[in-house]
Amino acid sequence: MPHRKEREHSEGQEHSEQQEQQEQPKHPVFALAPDSFKGSMSAKQVCYAMERGLRRVFPLADFIHVPMADGGEGTVQSLVDATGGSLYQREVTGPMGETVKAAFGILGDGNTAVLEMAEASGIQLVTEATRNPLAATTYGTGELIKECLDRGIRRIIIGIGGSATNDGGAGMAEALGARFLDADGNELPRGGGSLSRLAAIDVSDLDARLAEAELIVACDVTNPLCGSNGASMVFGPQKGATPDMTERLDAALSHYADVAKRQLGKDVRNIPGAGAAGGLGAGLLLFTNAVLRRGIEIVIDYSGLRGKLASADYCFTGEGCIDGQTLFGKTPYGVALAAKELGVPVIAVAGKVGEGAEQLFDFGFDVILGITPAAAPLDQLLAEGPQNVERTCENIGRLFKLGIKNA
Amino acid sequence: MPHRKEREHSEGQEHSEQQEQQEQPKHPVFALAPDSFKGSMSAKQVCYAMERGLRRVFPLADFIHVPMADGGEGTVQSLVDATGGSLYQREVTGPMGETVKAAFGILGDGNTAVLEMAEASGIQLVTEATRNPLAATTYGTGELIKECLDRGIRRIIIGIGGSATNDGGAGMAEALGARFLDADGNELPRGGGSLSRLAAIDVSDLDARLAEAELIVACDVTNPLCGSNGASMVFGPQKGATPDMTERLDAALSHYADVAKRQLGKDVRNIPGAGAAGGLGAGLLLFTNAVLRRGIEIVIDYSGLRGKLASADYCFTGEGCIDGQTLFGKTPYGVALAAKELGVPVIAVAGKVGEGAEQLFDFGFDVILGITPAAAPLDQLLAEGPQNVERTCENIGRLFKLGIKNA
Repeated sequence: MPHRKEREHSEGQEHSEQQEQQEQPKHPVFALAPDSFKGSMSAKQVCYAMERGLRRVFPLADFIHVPMADGGEGTVQSLVDATGGSLYQREVTGPMGETVKAAFGILGDGNTAVLEMAEASGIQLVTEATRNPLAATTYGTGELIKECLDRGIRRIIIGIGGSATNDGGAGMAEALGARFLDADGNELPRGGGSLSRLAAIDVSDLDARLAEAELIVACDVTNPLCGSNGASMVFGPQKGATPDMTERLDAALSHYADVAKRQLGKDVRNIPGAGAAGGLGAGLLLFTNAVLRRGIEIVIDYSGLRGKLASADYCFTGEGCIDGQTLFGKTPYGVALAAKELGVPVIAVAGKVGEGAEQLFDFGFDVILGITPAAAPLDQLLAEGPQNVERTCENIGRLFKLGIKNA
Repeated sequence: MPHRKEREHSEGQEHSEQQEQQEQPKHPVFALAPDSFKGSMSAKQVCYAMERGLRRVFPLADFIHVPMADGGEGTVQSLVDATGGSLYQREVTGPMGETVKAAFGILGDGNTAVLEMAEASGIQLVTEATRNPLAATTYGTGELIKECLDRGIRRIIIGIGGSATNDGGAGMAEALGARFLDADGNELPRGGGSLSRLAAIDVSDLDARLAEAELIVACDVTNPLCGSNGASMVFGPQKGATPDMTERLDAALSHYADVAKRQLGKDVRNIPGAGAAGGLGAGLLLFTNAVLRRGIEIVIDYSGLRGKLASADYCFTGEGCIDGQTLFGKTPYGVALAAKELGVPVIAVAGKVGEGAEQLFDFGFDVILGITPAAAPLDQLLAEGPQNVERTCENIGRLFKLGIKNA
């Protein structure tokens, strides 16, 4: 691995001239591209811990922080951190109609927003007592999109995991001017349950700026809108839907797809991902210029990871857990593939190195090490995450130094 | 680090000639010198797990197994394993007079035995109900020594940790022919308690072969025989001595030292280590040609570690726990010092990397990594020790391959 950045050796007084001539010390460039360690550290905090550890061994190295995410929780924070963007907060309508504060970000380019639907309409905003997938709405997610349009933003990344809703994105569209009417021309109450009575969708007042806007939807599930693999059947129960509610919701979304096809001329029923986030995938496809992509691919593109890797000698990544499941679109997998394309070795660290992790050696990973120092309660390990990442990365740096040439 | 063993490249068909000329692949030589991981693996098992992991990365490497110990539990097994010696078992008198089976070893040279006093007279052989430091005897340890003499062995390594006894080694000496008499010339009952009535020591029947024998005593404590830092006061309570018993035992050992000095002309009372193993240190000094040495130094000498390191590129060591306490004579510390003298880098792995481990970087350790893959119950981690060592060592090997030249 050539060291692409070569710098003057600044602590020459410690070395004889002969040594300098013989060795020509070069200082490595480390790209640090971890996900967050859930419950322990944000991706940015992981970057800092990695740097502290490696800097003990390579005090003159360059460190490029690229905090990552996979389109799910933490995507707003990581893309803001990776691009030097800004975090904002807005009061919006929560899933059950209450007011909630939702964070969103604008990337360092000033032209791209990043949202997580869960901030406005997420399952974490309801309790077992208040949850009701028949009534839960994505209205607040639509308000967040409108906020971006109001700020002049025309490119919006939106992560759609973790929803409390099952409304096919109707609430989101309503917040942006669409009207969902019953046979008498009255607006339907919010929530997926009432869509069974949908007679017409009025898009005459739909926000015209949506036509100019690009929505990049981070969506890792491929479920269709309806049926046995659809939003209601698969995800309804974990949002509190009883078997009866699940059936009603599935029928309502099916009817919604029929009406939408007839009126809007778009058939989204079976598009993979239409069933994501209670059908918000379908709603975004129906009412916006949405493209559905794997979350990690979006984060890689908009974090500028590839460009940053191009100048790196080593890429470090990591996540709370790395195991065989990591191959299913988790952050370290995407990072490893990107790094491998560029010939950059990949070192991964994890709070848990789980079953099947060794499979990753076939997919761009060079090294996978756990950070856990000993048997200890999980809460202690979560609290001590930064020092454990730091210590492990210091030792990784020490192993680099012992490296076997030509082995 | 030069590769001292160079071999023909045997899988040339996988490489172009040009590559061979450019790279001249050399296969590393790994010396594997761990202690046991208590409750999980013998030192030998650790060696095998290390080799399995490293061999995945360096299939053509050479592996030199040097299972280690620190003079405590596992010393017999490790020195037998390290030298290709043999294990034996003999029925001897246990600490409370019962019959116990005690293992001992003869090293690969055929001339050196290795004993652990705890096998014959150890605390693990008594229960809370049966223990009695007033009566407990080292007689069985003497029987083991006698067994070695009977086999023609004249060099005996003896580890003296973990005793149930407080008899000043009188029982040991009795088994070898010494007689401990009261004022009426009657033999005293066994156990440290009766030494308060000691009037004379008769060594006329002491085994004459002891004069030709060298006893190398692994002893890491520096306690004198008597007084506030002596055997009874410091170690008596953990053997079940009440405060009253502790005082009686201390007085008895003090009287024993007086009688021995007068009759045998040796004053062992204040020799550092005389108080080890309930005064067995003193007994060995009084009745045999004993030298007391640090356990790890003995193991290093008799395992042949230094000679084996001389042909190694890397030294791996490890123990169940590595922390700041490791500097107090634990195996990995001794191994690291020996390796560092020879310029061989030292990589340590541990089930627990504890507080203060980073201090070891100043004492010969290059790398210290934990093997724990995740938060898990201790018994599970102990059971999965071999696979965790293997996985960690594979990743260490992978890091070697990524090593930074001239960094």
